[in-house]
Amino acid sequence: MNLRHIIATIGFIVCLSGAYAQSDYDLWLNYRPVQNTEVAIQYRTVLSKVFFASGSPQLKAAHQELWMGSKGLLNIVPAQVALAQGNLVIGKLNQIGELRKLVQPGDLSDDGFVINTIVQGTRKVVVVSAETDLGVLYGVFAFLKQMQTGKNIDQLNITERPKTMVRVLNHWDNPNRTVERGYAGFSIWNWHKLPGYIDQKYIDYARANASVGINGTVLNNVNANIIMLTPAYIEKAKALADAFRPYGIKVYLSVKFSSPVELGGLKTADPLDDTVKKWWKDKAAEIYKSIPDFGGFLVKANSEGQPGPQTYGRNHADGANMLGEALAPHKGIVMWRAFVYDNNVPDDRAKQAYNEFKPLDGKFNDNVIVQVKNGAIDFQPREPFHPLFGALSQTPLMLEVQLTQEYLGFSTHLVYEAPLFKECLDADTYAKGEGTTVANILEGKYLPKKLTAMAGVANIGTDVNWCGHPFAQSNWYSFGRIAWNPQADAAQIADDWLRMTFTNDERFIKPMKDQMMRSRENAVNYMTPLGLHHIMGANGHYGPGPWTDNIGRADWTAVYYHKADSLGVGFDRTATGSNAVAQYYPEVRDYFGKLENCPDEYLLWFHHLPWNYKMRSGKTLWNEMVARYYTGVDAVKDMQQVWKGMQPYVDPVRFNEVEQLMAVQYEEAVRWRNSCVLYFQTFSKMPIDPKYPKPEHDLQYYRSLKFPNVPGLGVN
Amino acid sequence: MNLRHIIATIGFIVCLSGAYAQSDYDLWLNYRPVQNTEVAIQYRTVLSKVFFASGSPQLKAAHQELWMGSKGLLNIVPAQVALAQGNLVIGKLNQIGELRKLVQPGDLSDDGFVINTIVQGTRKVVVVSAETDLGVLYGVFAFLKQMQTGKNIDQLNITERPKTMVRVLNHWDNPNRTVERGYAGFSIWNWHKLPGYIDQKYIDYARANASVGINGTVLNNVNANIIMLTPAYIEKAKALADAFRPYGIKVYLSVKFSSPVELGGLKTADPLDDTVKKWWKDKAAEIYKSIPDFGGFLVKANSEGQPGPQTYGRNHADGANMLGEALAPHKGIVMWRAFVYDNNVPDDRAKQAYNEFKPLDGKFNDNVIVQVKNGAIDFQPREPFHPLFGALSQTPLMLEVQLTQEYLGFSTHLVYEAPLFKECLDADTYAKGEGTTVANILEGKYLPKKLTAMAGVANIGTDVNWCGHPFAQSNWYSFGRIAWNPQADAAQIADDWLRMTFTNDERFIKPMKDQMMRSRENAVNYMTPLGLHHIMGANGHYGPGPWTDNIGRADWTAVYYHKADSLGVGFDRTATGSNAVAQYYPEVRDYFGKLENCPDEYLLWFHHLPWNYKMRSGKTLWNEMVARYYTGVDAVKDMQQVWKGMQPYVDPVRFNEVEQLMAVQYEEAVRWRNSCVLYFQTFSKMPIDPKYPKPEHDLQYYRSLKFPNVPGLGVN
Repeated sequence: MNLRHIIATIGFIVCLSGAYAQSDYDLWLNYRPVQNTEVAIQYRTVLSKVFFASGSPQLKAAHQELWMGSKGLLNIVPAQVALAQGNLVIGKLNQIGELRKLVQPGDLSDDGFVINTIVQGTRKVVVVSAETDLGVLYGVFAFLKQMQTGKNIDQLNITERPKTMVRVLNHWDNPNRTVERGYAGFSIWNWHKLPGYIDQKYIDYARANASVGINGTVLNNVNANIIMLTPAYIEKAKALADAFRPYGIKVYLSVKFSSPVELGGLKTADPLDDTVKKWWKDKAAEIYKSIPDFGGFLVKANSEGQPGPQTYGRNHADGANMLGEALAPHKGIVMWRAFVYDNNVPDDRAKQAYNEFKPLDGKFNDNVIVQVKNGAIDFQPREPFHPLFGALSQTPLMLEVQLTQEYLGFSTHLVYEAPLFKECLDADTYAKGEGTTVANILEGKYLPKKLTAMAGVANIGTDVNWCGHPFAQSNWYSFGRIAWNPQADAAQIADDWLRMTFTNDERFIKPMKDQMMRSRENAVNYMTPLGLHHIMGANGHYGPGPWTDNIGRADWTAVYYHKADSLGVGFDRTATGSNAVAQYYPEVRDYFGKLENCPDEYLLWFHHLPWNYKMRSGKTLWNEMVARYYTGVDAVKDMQQVWKGMQPYVDPVRFNEVEQLMAVQYEEAVRWRNSCVLYFQTFSKMPIDPKYPKPEHDLQYYRSLKFPNVPGLGVN
Repeated sequence: MNLRHIIATIGFIVCLSGAYAQSDYDLWLNYRPVQNTEVAIQYRTVLSKVFFASGSPQLKAAHQELWMGSKGLLNIVPAQVALAQGNLVIGKLNQIGELRKLVQPGDLSDDGFVINTIVQGTRKVVVVSAETDLGVLYGVFAFLKQMQTGKNIDQLNITERPKTMVRVLNHWDNPNRTVERGYAGFSIWNWHKLPGYIDQKYIDYARANASVGINGTVLNNVNANIIMLTPAYIEKAKALADAFRPYGIKVYLSVKFSSPVELGGLKTADPLDDTVKKWWKDKAAEIYKSIPDFGGFLVKANSEGQPGPQTYGRNHADGANMLGEALAPHKGIVMWRAFVYDNNVPDDRAKQAYNEFKPLDGKFNDNVIVQVKNGAIDFQPREPFHPLFGALSQTPLMLEVQLTQEYLGFSTHLVYEAPLFKECLDADTYAKGEGTTVANILEGKYLPKKLTAMAGVANIGTDVNWCGHPFAQSNWYSFGRIAWNPQADAAQIADDWLRMTFTNDERFIKPMKDQMMRSRENAVNYMTPLGLHHIMGANGHYGPGPWTDNIGRADWTAVYYHKADSLGVGFDRTATGSNAVAQYYPEVRDYFGKLENCPDEYLLWFHHLPWNYKMRSGKTLWNEMVARYYTGVDAVKDMQQVWKGMQPYVDPVRFNEVEQLMAVQYEEAVRWRNSCVLYFQTFSKMPIDPKYPKPEHDLQYYRSLKFPNVPGLGVN
């Protein structure tokens, strides 16, 4: 409230808005002037004479990006010179003459690139090269990153190759521009103005994606509207595909399995029916006529009311393979979601995907990949890795993570998600012995020549700053980096992102990287500590709702998941309970399933424990839970203090944005804490340690709060 | 299509996007460097020593704007000096010492201002002064405008006073962020993040409004949601009011007449019921406790299904006065809409407002003003002025115009609306004899000491460029200018806007001003020439729909309005027909009603005429209609050619935006033309002159076109 008053009184954030209004919009590509004069001299020398090979649209895009970066970073326009004269030489390997031999890149056919500083006699030359046009574009972005992050470029020796083939955003965007679980405004796709109007935002979207190696986008919601397959909308999708092509971004569509009935007028959508097969083949051909490099289909089938092959007595492989056959002649792929969630409430929803897909292992066509969320429930603040990783040994799996913060405070909480992604990727499934991490599975190490992929549910909308929170941009950025290299380090990515987005000043980088790295654990602590999950508000998923107990079906409630009672709390997923833990390999089963091994972080995910259970800390479970909730809130307060000290290093607009958002985050974190400790106290009947501030209101107050118009309930 | 291919192929608009991405966002306040070095020297001298009086938030806002403008226009930071040393002196009259006597401003109590270049001995000083803080802010924006438009500031002698008291935007924004008839994305009000988060966009919105003298905003749709009056939403509105206050923008709310029942749980909303009166008094007091300068209520009652006093057997004055009494202690006002539109289809909908309000003349309280659209139907491309102007002589009337282009091509058609506004304002009602123009009525010349006001239905949304089309910004701008001074000249406003928004280069200004001034007539020609009206597509109001004949009620159709048959076309509103023309004063009645007087532009609004009626041009009515449709389309093609020549003067991003939008406009204009001439031909049975290109498709084709997900159908 205080800040609003300040703004109202002195309006100070206006002062420089003319100069800074765009820094939010420009993401990590804002190309601010290089402050370090020493490296700036180096950069200017290298950029004073540039040979940039000409050719494809991708090369042109790369060329323009370098020129734009040079203007912004160094306020120079590079001089274009002959190959032999260049201090900087950029082009495909077959365009850079003798230098090719000196860079020794190895195989770069998968859009990898090389950046080398080469000494050739008396000549020193920086070479950015690749096998493919897109590789050159990636190389140029990587070269620009060197300058954005203030690196010495005197002895560059970088070779990078993407470790996955398909790196794709999933937009849960509806044709009416609502976005399911979108917290940054509405869909950036203005379908009405397409195909005639290509918004500059589409181009900048493609640039941002290419800069982090994202090479595909699924334009529409997995709860798919059939209109997307009509000729008019294919024409609109084609316009986007044309705009994205210079940046190596392929367009994909989510499709509804019943389209042959609803759109085609057929009597069935049975995947084994010949008329159905033909309908999809014809539809695929129609799409490829407009979009020759169309990526393929994403399918949510037999889940949350969506139709699917099971509707016709077939299985997921039948459905996926039929679509795969339709796409195969055009080299398209099918991403088939394993997030199945049928209308019968199972004893443990966590088990369903495994149960349905395990028997189908090895039955999917080569151009089909199964898309698996990081955990078996639904993008909770913390989940153990999905048991399908490891369980399917003959089927390519792709990881789906959620960038939009459905369960992580929408766009008002600073939560850097890379540590969450990494927690899953670094988890060891033991499927092929120790070291069979999710990341290694994702990279296809055990299934040579098959598809590899990673998907992120986009957090992008119409907000000027794209993601609603300046720091939410880091989740888009880090997704791209991690999809490119699932072994990448979350802290290093945060470091790069902070430098590119804000400043290279260490007085900013060090504390804010630290805060980013803690931020997800903070959210876990004030929302769902110790393995609690799915206790958010009903429907809108906004704020706490541990009391949710009656909304249609049991596994939509909170009580189904926390199972709190007078005896204790937690979901017993061991052999004495649902035995979901048995879906893991024995080593993991023992790790999670045996109380003495199970880490505190996963305790209540797998075990139902008494309130006075003695924790490793020596505290009772109740006291530990209370402590975690209070710790989480205190950490937000600490973060606010740290941010206040960042004012000298940040433009006033973004400083204010973040300061306000942190105040909201604090308020909401307090509400989470108070709601949860008061609610669980009704079962534990145990006191809150008096050293903690007493909740300002009683439970009834928190239960009574209503939040109409919660965003993200996009209706198709 | 061609442009898309170009973009896909060479991606050229990327090149400078880093440098230009914000020019769209910054509206007419983008403060580009002054190119004319001669005046730049002059400006720098004046700005080298500035005395800026300190004080209120408004003065601080003005100070910051001047500093921001100086940085952008001249790349200087003005030096703040003592009053006696200033080359530029800015402050309230009581803050500028002896200079007060030299500027001789007269009465400026209504937020007027004075800008004078004064010679005081050997000293030359530019003085910007006013009676009120807000007047100073307006003066600073006016001074900046002098520099933005490249004026010589050596001998300034400007005094300006607003000619209306309330200059207010009407947002048709719903709490769920859909915007009824919004074509620039979604609502900029992020209710979920309010009150905690004040988006920089809100501040920039307030700056833009203040720069053109707008001093109020109705935050929500006239089809009002009762949630706006709940404590939580009053708190959100307060946060906006606090943010806007330094810019002199008051907040108003649209209210639903049945709120006492729906929100308050009362049994009735009868305006004469004491419990109802008390409910509104209490609600007003509650609002003013949070927002001490709250502006008041806007009410749509007994119209299009909205409840109102007639629901309880009372009249509009009963309803409006009851609300007026609730607001009066706090100095709030009621804006009561005359756009009444009941559920019984009248013989002529055009007559209803007059019939209901004429008997109530003089019965409204002093803090009530009746809000009247420019025409009696609904913001058509051309309508004769509303007969209520002139008809009510004892009741203050405010004019409502529509900035959002519901009937003018959404946000893909370049239509500069100021000539439309002016057509209404300059119309002579003859109510008090010749010269009783709408503008004079609006200014309150015949009702001293009463309220005066003008409202514009906002065309603002989440699009980065605010309005969806770069040129649509001119409608926001011109509304403010005209609300401030209804006598202002549309061409002069276009001139100022072009200079402030794009460039002072005459090679751009002259042709583009010319195109802007023609643009509304072009749209009339390709949509509704010769007085045709309400023949747009059903529901979404997108594109042509002259065939619409069966959608719920007769006066929602097109055939109700054009009445085409084998004998002729047009709505007979003379004595032989609905006699709506009798609602005007005799001079106007004769002008519109007598065929020999009625201008071609209004012909079919007032007369049903045979297809072979001989027009002033010598052509038959049919041939004249066809000619107008073809002329309108050709004019768009001309405009495209002119724009192509503007490339040297416009940044590439906006050049491309406009080029693409004009291509869409052309396509849609052709569709309007072909649909209408083919449709009306089915009645006239007369040929289209073979000199014109034949429509590409037949009528059936145009009738069969479907446009799902048309924007602007915001659902509350």
